[in-house]
Amino acid sequence: MRNYIFELPFEVRDYECDLQGIVNNAVYQNYFEHTRHKFLLSKNISFSELHKKGIDAVVVKVEISFKHSLLPDTPFISKLSLKKEGVRYVFHQALFSIDNQTLFASARTETVILNQGKLGFTPELDAIVQEAETLS
Amino acid sequence: MRNYIFELPFEVRDYECDLQGIVNNAVYQNYFEHTRHKFLLSKNISFSELHKKGIDAVVVKVEISFKHSLLPDTPFISKLSLKKEGVRYVFHQALFSIDNQTLFASARTETVILNQGKLGFTPELDAIVQEAETLS
Amino acid sequence: MRNYIFELPFEVRDYECDLQGIVNNAVYQNYFEHTRHKFLLSKNISFSELHKKGIDAVVVKVEISFKHSLLPDTPFISKLSLKKEGVRYVFHQALFSIDNQTLFASARTETVILNQGKLGFTPELDAIVQEAETLS
Amino acid sequence: MRNYIFELPFEVRDYECDLQGIVNNAVYQNYFEHTRHKFLLSKNISFSELHKKGIDAVVVKVEISFKHSLLPDTPFISKLSLKKEGVRYVFHQALFSIDNQTLFASARTETVILNQGKLGFTPELDAIVQEAETLS
Repeated sequence: MRNYIFELPFEVRDYECDLQGIVNNAVYQNYFEHTRHKFLLSKNISFSELHKKGIDAVVVKVEISFKHSLLPDTPFISKLSLKKEGVRYVFHQALFSIDNQTLFASARTETVILNQGKLGFTPELDAIVQEAETLS
Repeated sequence: MRNYIFELPFEVRDYECDLQGIVNNAVYQNYFEHTRHKFLLSKNISFSELHKKGIDAVVVKVEISFKHSLLPDTPFISKLSLKKEGVRYVFHQALFSIDNQTLFASARTETVILNQGKLGFTPELDAIVQEAETLS
Repeated sequence: MRNYIFELPFEVRDYECDLQGIVNNAVYQNYFEHTRHKFLLSKNISFSELHKKGIDAVVVKVEISFKHSLLPDTPFISKLSLKKEGVRYVFHQALFSIDNQTLFASARTETVILNQGKLGFTPELDAIVQEAETLS
Repeated sequence: MRNYIFELPFEVRDYECDLQGIVNNAVYQNYFEHTRHKFLLSKNISFSELHKKGIDAVVVKVEISFKHSLLPDTPFISKLSLKKEGVRYVFHQALFSIDNQTLFASARTETVILNQGKLGFTPELDAIVQEAETLS
């Protein structure tokens, strides 16, 4: 199993389920995004504060594998690891059941940093990646 | 201040904010709905399980007052009280800051129970209302 | 019937429906908001452009009556009228079936204009209200 | 350019934009899903009606490339093609500007059919795939 460096507990909310009675596929991206932003916050980096300074983390590619449908009232754990590939910050993420026995979904998300609209990077984020790569 | 009988902690997620940089108005209904459903769950009543039995709680009217905008990364407490007026179950709800000093929004939500599509009621819910009215 | 001054056709999208198989209550606010913004656009006022200039239309109160559930694949018409009450711009809105025979929901939404964070108004919007009040 | 067999016009709604002032990544999945369901409807297959019969189209994998951010008030065209690979129905989708000069995003979505919870297929859908493969 991948060495995840951050975990966040979640619980399915009824309004996130669609007419099939399961969490709608698009909502998984909400879960994954919120996990990334909470990870950054845990490193004192605020996505919204960055944006105010003209620095935007932008998703350029996402791949999601849906393994088991998330059902109403289900608690789950969202896990994350982070690497850098060229100018891209690549997040590997997964949603597991509380007992870690069920993988609901996994995702690979490539992001870039736009600084005042131009491809850039942030020393703070690079420090985190270096720390992350050491851990994972 | 109203005597609330249930509280649920929340935190603003970035994807819930719109281009004004504040939580979108529609998302408040998500917060209020999730609070109602978690309150019911705390009484062993599952909204989704009720639906499978053909019993649906349906909102017929909602009034929301928006007092202070909820901003990114903000934690808050959602509070709820419940009364019965005729066939309607009426929820009074409010979102407060953690220190209880700021009221972000309040709502009054009228719901009815549809049992197999017909206006009905559930003994379980009535027992909760009776308990709620004693408390509040 | 109220004299509506703007109409916008919609169609229910499956992802807007929740586990009850009907449009989730919060989504109605999305419909109402989008109708208001398209109405303003029809008058050459862009909500997002206003925001960039530091002028924000903010909802302070909303009342929604849900009359008939909107079902998957259902087309409907969203209608709007506008009045000014003191500093508040008040929108009366309703969602009707294509044949106008069914009222799905109606809403009363009070908004104020914040200019650089202070209660303000916009001459453009006042001109529209005056025109609207003449029509309705 | 791929031979798309179905097109659907869209327009960005303000509530779909996040605090960066652009359409939130998760919303693209809403656009792609709605396009698939409207394509099926154009072939007289209703996603919600299928669900009532115990037949569910379930997404097992999605890959999305985000090329240019979708901005407020932007109209765009959603295009779709369809192939079958083993038991999987694979949709290739893309969002283009009205003048076809800008590709906002493209997606590859793998779906399977669950009939009463078991991996299955539907003759109606296979007929459509055969027709689609002839066209594209």
